[in-house]
Parts: sequence; structure tokens; C-alpha cells
Amino acid sequence: MKTQVAIIGAGPSGLLLGQLLSRQGIDNVILERKSGEYVLSRIRAGVLEQGMVDLLREAGVDERMDAEGLPHDGVELAFDNRRVRIDLAGLTGGKRVMVYGQTEVTRDLMEAREASGGTTIYEADNVQPHDLEGDSPDATPYVTFEKDGETHRLDCDYVAGCDGFHGVSRRSIPEHRIKEFERVYPFGWLGMLSDTPPVADELIYARHERGFALCSMRSETRSRYYIQVPLDEKAEDWSDERFWEELKRRLPEETAAQLVTGPSLEKSIAPLRSFVVEPMQYGRLFLVGDAAHIVPPTGAKGLNLAASDVNTLYRLLVKVYREGRTDLIPRYSETCLKRIWKAERFSWWMTSMLHKFSEEEDFGTRMQQAELDYVTGSEAGLTTIAENYVGLPYEPLE
Amino acid sequence: MKTQVAIIGAGPSGLLLGQLLSRQGIDNVILERKSGEYVLSRIRAGVLEQGMVDLLREAGVDERMDAEGLPHDGVELAFDNRRVRIDLAGLTGGKRVMVYGQTEVTRDLMEAREASGGTTIYEADNVQPHDLEGDSPDATPYVTFEKDGETHRLDCDYVAGCDGFHGVSRRSIPEHRIKEFERVYPFGWLGMLSDTPPVADELIYARHERGFALCSMRSETRSRYYIQVPLDEKAEDWSDERFWEELKRRLPEETAAQLVTGPSLEKSIAPLRSFVVEPMQYGRLFLVGDAAHIVPPTGAKGLNLAASDVNTLYRLLVKVYREGRTDLIPRYSETCLKRIWKAERFSWWMTSMLHKFSEEEDFGTRMQQAELDYVTGSEAGLTTIAENYVGLPYEPLE
Repeated sequence: MKTQVAIIGAGPSGLLLGQLLSRQGIDNVILERKSGEYVLSRIRAGVLEQGMVDLLREAGVDERMDAEGLPHDGVELAFDNRRVRIDLAGLTGGKRVMVYGQTEVTRDLMEAREASGGTTIYEADNVQPHDLEGDSPDATPYVTFEKDGETHRLDCDYVAGCDGFHGVSRRSIPEHRIKEFERVYPFGWLGMLSDTPPVADELIYARHERGFALCSMRSETRSRYYIQVPLDEKAEDWSDERFWEELKRRLPEETAAQLVTGPSLEKSIAPLRSFVVEPMQYGRLFLVGDAAHIVPPTGAKGLNLAASDVNTLYRLLVKVYREGRTDLIPRYSETCLKRIWKAERFSWWMTSMLHKFSEEEDFGTRMQQAELDYVTGSEAGLTTIAENYVGLPYEPLE
Repeated sequence: MKTQVAIIGAGPSGLLLGQLLSRQGIDNVILERKSGEYVLSRIRAGVLEQGMVDLLREAGVDERMDAEGLPHDGVELAFDNRRVRIDLAGLTGGKRVMVYGQTEVTRDLMEAREASGGTTIYEADNVQPHDLEGDSPDATPYVTFEKDGETHRLDCDYVAGCDGFHGVSRRSIPEHRIKEFERVYPFGWLGMLSDTPPVADELIYARHERGFALCSMRSETRSRYYIQVPLDEKAEDWSDERFWEELKRRLPEETAAQLVTGPSLEKSIAPLRSFVVEPMQYGRLFLVGDAAHIVPPTGAKGLNLAASDVNTLYRLLVKVYREGRTDLIPRYSETCLKRIWKAERFSWWMTSMLHKFSEEEDFGTRMQQAELDYVTGSEAGLTTIAENYVGLPYEPLE
């Protein structure tokens, strides 16, 4: 088998990259370790920045998003038994976010790929890229994988590693060629999905002395709530009733009184982590999204950062194939990282400001309170949140 | 002896409070442990917020400040071998700061006090406030002290504790009635004063992989420079030459090339600390300035915070004596603390962003770089620095 770009991973970033490249006539094959059903069963983020919405439009997968997605002009912070609205559109000259689940984005992209006849090989075992390091024009990387018990070889020009934090792509780079940056937080998020109307029209990020809480949604009838829990907590120890009670205690009283409860569709605990690898490329391999960086979910940046990497790699590959601009290749990592580090900063800052880190009221607690007090009382402070939340501009390649 | 307000400490906050009260006909006596010469020999901060400048005008001590002080419309950040100017006036609707040394402020206030005939008792030993707790109208606090070997008693209505972090005032409050919040930083500042022209017209706060540096000044011919050093460092191990060399290495190359060096007038190391006590009052005792809170000097907030406490206490006492508004007394601490915690946040944030905390490039280092990259590239980010640097508005008493 032979293609121009081998894409490892059929999550939203791999599928979006594939779709964008296909529309520009650049041949690509996606290899995915799991089944399509499995990929769609993963419940993830759901807040899309303007830049990602635009990119999905460019990929031609905006129809259902426009029909079913919920554009949000604002987001709320809750603390001290009150809520403060951040007017995203008003503070950023009209920018907004779109609430549309990652699962839906993935489904739309899968359908578009099927319609366009692109090749996706699901349940590909032991995917392994080879001969990546060559940067001469006639270098010949390839990817091997097993399917139905047989070993296959996919020859290609470039490999896009869209296979997430635990994928093979990053691990294919010699250790001494990359440097990892990491922060692990001493807590996780217990998330619950339920077919109940959201407690508010916009997302609420709540700081409370008992811990952080987030009121989010997937649609007008499906809610997604989260509460901060210790890392050693187990989802099965949380009955629906216990979850709702704890959530209510962390929200302003009026908000808690409006909360509509109901049976959970899913409950799970995710750890929080900040992680970045530098550089995000090695020879003919480019790392995209979670394969290169993880943000804690406070700030809703994970999926959006993957989209901005896709944007950079897509535009770079178009210039390579259309204009022979192979000189731009070394710029991929630094172009991506400028924006990534700012998003890492925002996610770390939101996480630091809103979570409980200490059992007692200490200097750190007071800093959180002062930060909330300051930023919500200052137009400039509110604007810093708004412009980061809707997404900083994409960095140009040159 | 009898007075209305006993003021402990003849530093700038005690002197400013005394002067303001005297001008409103409220009798006060200042007790100071040291001599006037000693007080004037302490070399401290030199950047005054607009609010403090206005308060000094209200106290009638603006003549020399206006003649010799340097109004600054901007301040600079240096990093990555470049400098970014923060247009304080442009970003805050015309607010600015005044560079005028604390020593000069103190000298002006001492002279004004002498001219107005106010009583200041220097070299008062073993100053000790008594019977503070009573809040009934006929409560009778008093302060004892020794002078020239004799014990004296000063009866008063109220006691203002302006005697700094190590003073007796805060220690006179029973431990179980207050709570302390503290953060100690793992480094100090080595400061050097020299009769050399400042390297730039405005202050430069520099982040460098070798550590923080600050280029400041007292006048157009006198410079004040600082470099971050480990806590176990000794000032006497730093020759002038070694200091200048290290400073140059931490500045952008062009700036270092412009640095005029010369013999030092003084060199000393100060530790960095964040500290706040809650509440800042106990019965008839009010804590003012460093007696209640310390900020690390990054951000130039220490003296200015003392002035905002003075502003609050002065206006409160005028209402108490003029209008009998003793109901306002319990509001002193919370009014002060709102502004103090925001200034503590700003000082902690500036310190965290600009100092070296780790020997290696780690996630924290990248957060500092991303923070600088973001705030200096965003109008909103720059405004958050500017509005904090010129000073947030004074909080109203009611």
C-alpha cells in the first residue's frame, strides 16, 4: 500500500486532517487501533472555539453542527454563592464558542470520510512507523500494522501522529531527541452525563471550599456535570444521589435550587494533567493534539488545541505538495508550540484558580479568592478570560 | 500624657497618618523606638502610586516631591533579550506613578510634623499598648513606654499600630484572635545604590534564566539596582564588580551595554515574603501597613499599601470624631483587606512570573515564559499589569 500522508489515529484530529487533505487532493490513509464504534463511545469535550468551527466548515462538516450545536456568547464563573457572567462576544468583538460534543464531531467526520471514499483501516494492530528520520527528498518512511492476522506495509511521504497521549507515535521518537514537560494535579474530575435539561444556558465553572464543579451540557436536554474528587476516589462509589447532592453543595444556592436531577447515563473519573513534548516533530513524523500535549480540562482547550495543530499541519502540507515548500517543514513544531504554551498557561491558571488544593484556608486559598475578585471586577481581567476562552488567534506558518 | 490617637511607629505610615489627623484637628502622639536619624537611614522603596501621591498632597507635603520626584508614564519588562514597555498612562486613562524615595517622603513628613508642632517621641523604649479590647464608649486604652530611664503612660482613645512587621502592635493581639497567612520565597534581593545615571528612564523588571533583576532609580543621578540571589548569600561576598557583571548578564545585551557602573553607596540583601494577618484590628487597636501585611517588592506595593491603610484609617477616624460614626470602626479591617489581597495577588504573581524557581527548564519555567508571551502580546494582558501597577482604586468605607 502506498499513500502521501499516513495518519495514525481516527479520533477527531486524524479524521479532520484526513478530510481537509482529501479535499485538497492529497491522498491519505488513516490507521486506527480500535473499532469505529469504540471511538464513538468515548465521551469527551464539547466546547468548540471559533477557529475549530471555521476549520470544520472548511472541511465541509458543518451542516449538523449548525443545526444542533449551541452557540454560546458567554460563560459563567461561580464563587462566594454568586455567579458572574463573562460576556465572551462583548469582550472579544463578537467571538463565541459552539457547544457540540466531540462524539458528534467525530461522527460527522466519519460520515464525511465514508462519503468521500477515504480509506480508514480500523482495528489495525501493532501500528508502527519506520524510517522516519530521513529528511532528504527521497526518504521513504513507512508504517507497518497487522490486520486480520496479516502484516501490512503502508509506504508514505509523511506520518501524522494523531493517536493520543498513549499512542505509538510519540514513543517512536528516540528519547534523547525530545523533552517532556509535565504537571500532575492531586485530584481528578468525576463526570456524569444525564438526560436532564442543563441548569443554565451557559457553562458554569464553580469554585467552592468543597472543591471545583462544572455545569456543562451536550444539548438542551442532555447535561454534563463534573465535580473535583480525590485521585483515589472510585466512580462506582458515587451513587447518582450522592453525586447530585455534592454538586448542589458546590453551586450557589439559587443555582442548586434550579438543578434538575435524573438518572446518570455514564459516570467516570479522569485525572488532570498538563503535558507538552518539545519538539512535536521528528524527521517525517508530526505529532498532532494529545500525542504531543495534554491540558487539564478546565478551560475546554484539549480538542481545540488538536484542531489548531491540524490547521497548521494541513496548511503546511498543502504548501509542501502544491508549492514544494519543504523549507517550511521544520517550522511545524515551533508554530504549534507558541499557541499551545499559551493554552497550557490558560488551562493551568483556570485549574489553579478554581480547584481546592489545601484542606485549610491558607495563602494559596486567599490568592484564588483575590484572583477571582480581581479578574471579575476588572474589564481587562474579564477580557483576558474571554479572549483565551474563545481561543487566541491561530499562529501563521511564516 | 493624654491624646486622641496614639501612633506607634514614626515611619512613613505613622507620620502620614499623624499629619493627616493633625490637619483635621485630631490630636495625636507618635512613639518611635529608634532615633529620627535611624529611621531616615533605612533605604526602601521609591515608587508611589497616584493614590499615595494624592494623599501626600492632602497632607500638604507635596512641594519637594513635585520638584524632585520623577513622574513615570510607563514601566518595562525585559525577557528573551528584549524589552517591552507597558504604557501605564495610555492603558489606564492617564494614571501614572511617581518615583520618589521612601526616605524623602519620610523626611518631608518629619519636617511637616515639626513645623506643625506635633509630638513625636523618638527613642521610646519598651512601647506597649494596654486595655485595647474594650469597645464600649468609655473604654480607656493606654500605651506605656520608657524614655530616658523613666516609664511614661500615654492615655488615648485609639491606637494606630504603624510599627512594621517586627513591631509590638501585632504581637499585642491575642494569638487566637488573629490568623496569619504567609508565603516565603526561596530567594532574596541583593540591592545596590550608586551615584550613577539610571540605565533607562523607566523601571525595568527583567526575567532571565540566571534570575530576576530590577533596574530602578532614586533620581536622574542615583540608581538602585537589584538582583535575585539565593537566601544564604551574603552582601559582603559581592564586590561592586561582581554585582555589575551579574546584573549585566541578566539584562538584554543592548541595555547591558548602556549600563553606567560606579562605586556602590550601599549593598544589602532582603528576603522576599508574602504575609497578611486577619483581621487587622483588635478592639481599639488598628494595624497599619507592614504591621499587618508584607508583600514581596516585585510590583512596588509595600509603601503604597501602607498609604491605602492610612487613607482608610484617617477617613474612619475623621468620621468617628466629627460625626460620631463609631459604627464604622468594625469595618476598618475588611475595607483594607479587599485592596490588600488584590495587591498581594499582584505582587505574588509578578514575583512568580519573573524569578527563577528551578535549576532546570521545567513546566514552571514554561508557564513563566507563556505568561510573559501572553500578557505582553495582549492589550487586555498589558492593561491588567498597568492598572495594578498604578494602583487599584481605594475601597470606600461604606
